[in-house]
Amino acid sequence: MPITANDPNRKTWIKTTPNTDFPIQNIPFGVFLTRDDIITIGTRIGDTAIDLGALHQLGYFDGIPLTDDIFLQDSLNDFISDGKKTWRLVRNRIAEIFDEKNNTLKNNKDHKTEVLFALDEIEMQLPVSVGDYTDFYSSIEHATNVGTMFRGKDNALMPNWLHLPVGYHGRSSSIIPSGIPIHRPQGQKLTNGATEPIFGPSRLVDFELEMAFITTDANALGEPIPIEEAEDYIFGLVLFNDWSARDIQKWEYVPLGPFLGKNFASSISPWIVTLDALEPYRTNGPKPLKEQLPYLQSSGKKSFDIDLEVAIQPANEKETIVCKSNFKYMYWNMSQQLAHHTINGCPVNSGDMMGSGTLSGPTPDSFGSMLELSWRGEKPVQLKSGGSRKFIEDNDTVIMRGHCEKDGVRIGFGEVSTKLLPVFKK
Amino acid sequence: MPITANDPNRKTWIKTTPNTDFPIQNIPFGVFLTRDDIITIGTRIGDTAIDLGALHQLGYFDGIPLTDDIFLQDSLNDFISDGKKTWRLVRNRIAEIFDEKNNTLKNNKDHKTEVLFALDEIEMQLPVSVGDYTDFYSSIEHATNVGTMFRGKDNALMPNWLHLPVGYHGRSSSIIPSGIPIHRPQGQKLTNGATEPIFGPSRLVDFELEMAFITTDANALGEPIPIEEAEDYIFGLVLFNDWSARDIQKWEYVPLGPFLGKNFASSISPWIVTLDALEPYRTNGPKPLKEQLPYLQSSGKKSFDIDLEVAIQPANEKETIVCKSNFKYMYWNMSQQLAHHTINGCPVNSGDMMGSGTLSGPTPDSFGSMLELSWRGEKPVQLKSGGSRKFIEDNDTVIMRGHCEKDGVRIGFGEVSTKLLPVFKK
Repeated sequence: MPITANDPNRKTWIKTTPNTDFPIQNIPFGVFLTRDDIITIGTRIGDTAIDLGALHQLGYFDGIPLTDDIFLQDSLNDFISDGKKTWRLVRNRIAEIFDEKNNTLKNNKDHKTEVLFALDEIEMQLPVSVGDYTDFYSSIEHATNVGTMFRGKDNALMPNWLHLPVGYHGRSSSIIPSGIPIHRPQGQKLTNGATEPIFGPSRLVDFELEMAFITTDANALGEPIPIEEAEDYIFGLVLFNDWSARDIQKWEYVPLGPFLGKNFASSISPWIVTLDALEPYRTNGPKPLKEQLPYLQSSGKKSFDIDLEVAIQPANEKETIVCKSNFKYMYWNMSQQLAHHTINGCPVNSGDMMGSGTLSGPTPDSFGSMLELSWRGEKPVQLKSGGSRKFIEDNDTVIMRGHCEKDGVRIGFGEVSTKLLPVFKK
Repeated sequence: MPITANDPNRKTWIKTTPNTDFPIQNIPFGVFLTRDDIITIGTRIGDTAIDLGALHQLGYFDGIPLTDDIFLQDSLNDFISDGKKTWRLVRNRIAEIFDEKNNTLKNNKDHKTEVLFALDEIEMQLPVSVGDYTDFYSSIEHATNVGTMFRGKDNALMPNWLHLPVGYHGRSSSIIPSGIPIHRPQGQKLTNGATEPIFGPSRLVDFELEMAFITTDANALGEPIPIEEAEDYIFGLVLFNDWSARDIQKWEYVPLGPFLGKNFASSISPWIVTLDALEPYRTNGPKPLKEQLPYLQSSGKKSFDIDLEVAIQPANEKETIVCKSNFKYMYWNMSQQLAHHTINGCPVNSGDMMGSGTLSGPTPDSFGSMLELSWRGEKPVQLKSGGSRKFIEDNDTVIMRGHCEKDGVRIGFGEVSTKLLPVFKK
């Protein structure tokens, strides 16, 4: 079935600015509270939010096999379970409804009042109920940078790194949408030279620039997903800030991996951009440096050319962009990650989230964390508003953005923006 | 409010055998499919399953603040969200209903037909929808045994081990109830002396004898749970078999911890025994070997005296008990685990599951995994049925059991029994 929603020549009757992340070719999916405090599933064109629950009740999805309440839910999980064919039918239909040549909704004032919202009338929620969240570690630059800092240049990459997409399980309960502030975490840490830990606020709070993909129900317990089928089970992507407390992480993580250094918060952009919408931006990932086992060998363009940036905005100041990177730097692609994750029969469900790992690029200005940008604090990052940062300070807001652009069409992710508040006090 | 359900002198009109794990003092909670294929929440006395959804509809819980459909659900999550006071009211009421002196239900044939089921008429399900699953590593004997094998006796315990309950995030999607068979996982492994991994079936499939506790909604993002409040948020416990593939785990786990070596399956006993039911079996845990930071200092008897055993049963053979251990060997207690888990503000929700880590005791016959029992395969474990085991073989069933006993009352967990099938073939 062709993805007619991606037609680069289509124009919409919804007012949009030329540089919007959300032209009619995007049609992302999210969950929001409306001005009447009703929760619904929606999409967005330009700065207009569209209530898909209301559209469906008004009959605009007639002919597509959808249950009556599929969009009147507080998560996209059930819709995602409907599978790729249904996602495509719905996106194609939305493109038609809002095509500038289609007058049906355009000329129906009552319907428009029910369906369309200004962004300041809605409140974005988490788009999915995340059953399981996995974080990979798939940027070779990031793994090499961190490895060099902790073990020296010669032992930077672990022996397994070029053979498999290293990953670990993260915490679902602390995944939050853009806009929710977090508190500086407290915990145990070992000061330099000490042998006994002390307790207190983390002094090394960091962001990690990541993207995460969201899956549909993929396999039963025991059954691997072949790599060539993996993309059928990927619904779409969001921006992902994997907040990290480096001092807590360093003391706790041997031998079982990161725990409290990570699970105090992970923030995501609230609109899921579908893999279908990203189709025109396919590109090759890095060439493998070692031969990969057959179950990990992928063919075709399995990466995506998505420009990414991170800004730090101190309280009441202007932001400074501190990092510019790209999703395509990821060494292990999503198909490889999903094939690896399930090779032992681990079941993947609708709404599961899989993070890329920090997306550092080859140049120092493309490093995806303060740990790397300030090289463990040795090279403070200068801010336009004056001052500098080794790590994130209280009341700083960290903002991540991402978009693709080609043939005059820009598909963006909006942003994930999170303010770090001081330590929680009762 | 007194826990009248625990009255050791109470007798029931339900037929029970003297040695049952489920006397009227237990009253565990589970989810099952009835003979009519209806899913419901239930409890168990002796070998009789009790449909709490039906009991509630018939008015037996009148006066307790419960929503009409609280037991007509496919998970206990909402009931667990109701909180400790409600759990206690419901257990106390169930004890009254089935007290031998109470004739109301006993003499109502129609009601009994609706409410009571023989065990072979029902099919046990997962009792909770697990949002997040965390596995701790809290037995000092297990950590020392594994550390000794991999790093030698002098470096057995990592420097952080005596300062914090080491834990990591596990995979919720592969948690299954007793009775569901699993397949031998495949994956990457490094054979002795090799530098490049090969792909194939794990040759070192192992069990880990654990228990897991299930939480209620405990805290908002950012707010720690003080250690003295931690038990208010613990609903109950189950037996937990943390299946492990040692060869896959060994190759993948540095630096981010266990992943595919663990997430192919974890099995649990289907009846959650409440913390209230375990109250009479409180005991002290091991004395701390180092002073603990204030947020981890717990007072009073925070451990429980629960006898545990593991049996291996080859296909068509009798079982052999290969391990006898106890929950009380756990160095870090559940209150410490929960206080540590939330000290950075990580939110804990209803239905979250937290594993103890392998519960090895001080003597070789109390080691909780084949890795330790056979000491990396160097000392095969003899089976009564002939033959021996270094690790688990195809078509072996691993069975774990647990119970407390005091003053003539035995509170048990039933069992978690899981058969290992050969590698999955399409």
